[in-house]
Amino acid sequence: MKHAAALAALIDALRALPGVGPKGAQRMAFHLLQDARPAARGLSQAIAQALERIGRCSRCRMLTEGELCAICEQPSRDAATLCIVESPADVVAIEQSGGYRGRYFVLMGHLSPLDGVGPEELGIQELETQLQQGSVREVILATNPTVEGEATAHFLSELVRSHGIKASRIAHGVPVGGELEYVDGGTLAHALAGRQALT
Amino acid sequence: MKHAAALAALIDALRALPGVGPKGAQRMAFHLLQDARPAARGLSQAIAQALERIGRCSRCRMLTEGELCAICEQPSRDAATLCIVESPADVVAIEQSGGYRGRYFVLMGHLSPLDGVGPEELGIQELETQLQQGSVREVILATNPTVEGEATAHFLSELVRSHGIKASRIAHGVPVGGELEYVDGGTLAHALAGRQALT
Repeated sequence: MKHAAALAALIDALRALPGVGPKGAQRMAFHLLQDARPAARGLSQAIAQALERIGRCSRCRMLTEGELCAICEQPSRDAATLCIVESPADVVAIEQSGGYRGRYFVLMGHLSPLDGVGPEELGIQELETQLQQGSVREVILATNPTVEGEATAHFLSELVRSHGIKASRIAHGVPVGGELEYVDGGTLAHALAGRQALT
Repeated sequence: MKHAAALAALIDALRALPGVGPKGAQRMAFHLLQDARPAARGLSQAIAQALERIGRCSRCRMLTEGELCAICEQPSRDAATLCIVESPADVVAIEQSGGYRGRYFVLMGHLSPLDGVGPEELGIQELETQLQQGSVREVILATNPTVEGEATAHFLSELVRSHGIKASRIAHGVPVGGELEYVDGGTLAHALAGRQALT
């Protein structure tokens, strides 16, 4: 059956959300219009306000409301260590792990020449400006362990070392709490190759 | 880590969508602000427009832009058969099955006294008005096969029969294409009790 035009438009717009297919979008649209009209109005306004207010941190490109993000504003963070990640969600994940006290640089993507994403789109110029300032002594490359993420890490490692700065890559291996039996072959191979001596 | 206020508000608002938890909402918010800003603006506007334009069909309570919904407007639909469902999504599902040519009545919920949902909230008055007009000869009760749905069907069947109109309930049984082995006991019991003679 054909939906009313405004309803069809809403279902279509909801598909812009990641992980939402046609059935899920229809379910969301009916829910918003049927049981949750005040919440729907709130969602419409929250999206509009976030678009208006949220920009990027001028230093690390993290999503933020102010000129600098909450992390860059903290004077206690170690300016000598810079962790490069692909997305804001990666910053949140690393922060939640609680084991990192340095700063970040968010690429907002990875190198993908076919999609027109080159060094410029990833803010490499801003990154180089920071590296030239001299306070960074180590760059941790924490891009995703995918083909594109590895290629981006390789590109960045050359760039970082050309500035005379140490580059490191996060370790790949068996997840803590996982069972070897269920770990894929690529990860196991990495875990074996990256074995560390017990002292 | 603490998100910026507008970002936290957006993540919170996205949780109004059905099936979206804290992690999913964060992923959606980052996606909207990072890669999909034009789509995010479109979504904000689509929600606002749908809220403004989409109301309920004055006859069957289906979501619609006009006075009557697309189904009620079709003169070819059989006015003698009325199928009562809980939600607009059920209308879509039955329409897609292609096997029904009558009209609908959408309760927009089910009887749930603890949540303050009584006959009035389900539009029973509008339903009675239609039953009194005399064109309906059979009412098919297609509420969900849940405790609340069955209770609502039971309530409606008494109401419908008090108007001297035939009431029927959709069949419960083994899904077509399913395997008996994986069907739950309640459904199997229904399938056995509702067995039909082969002629």
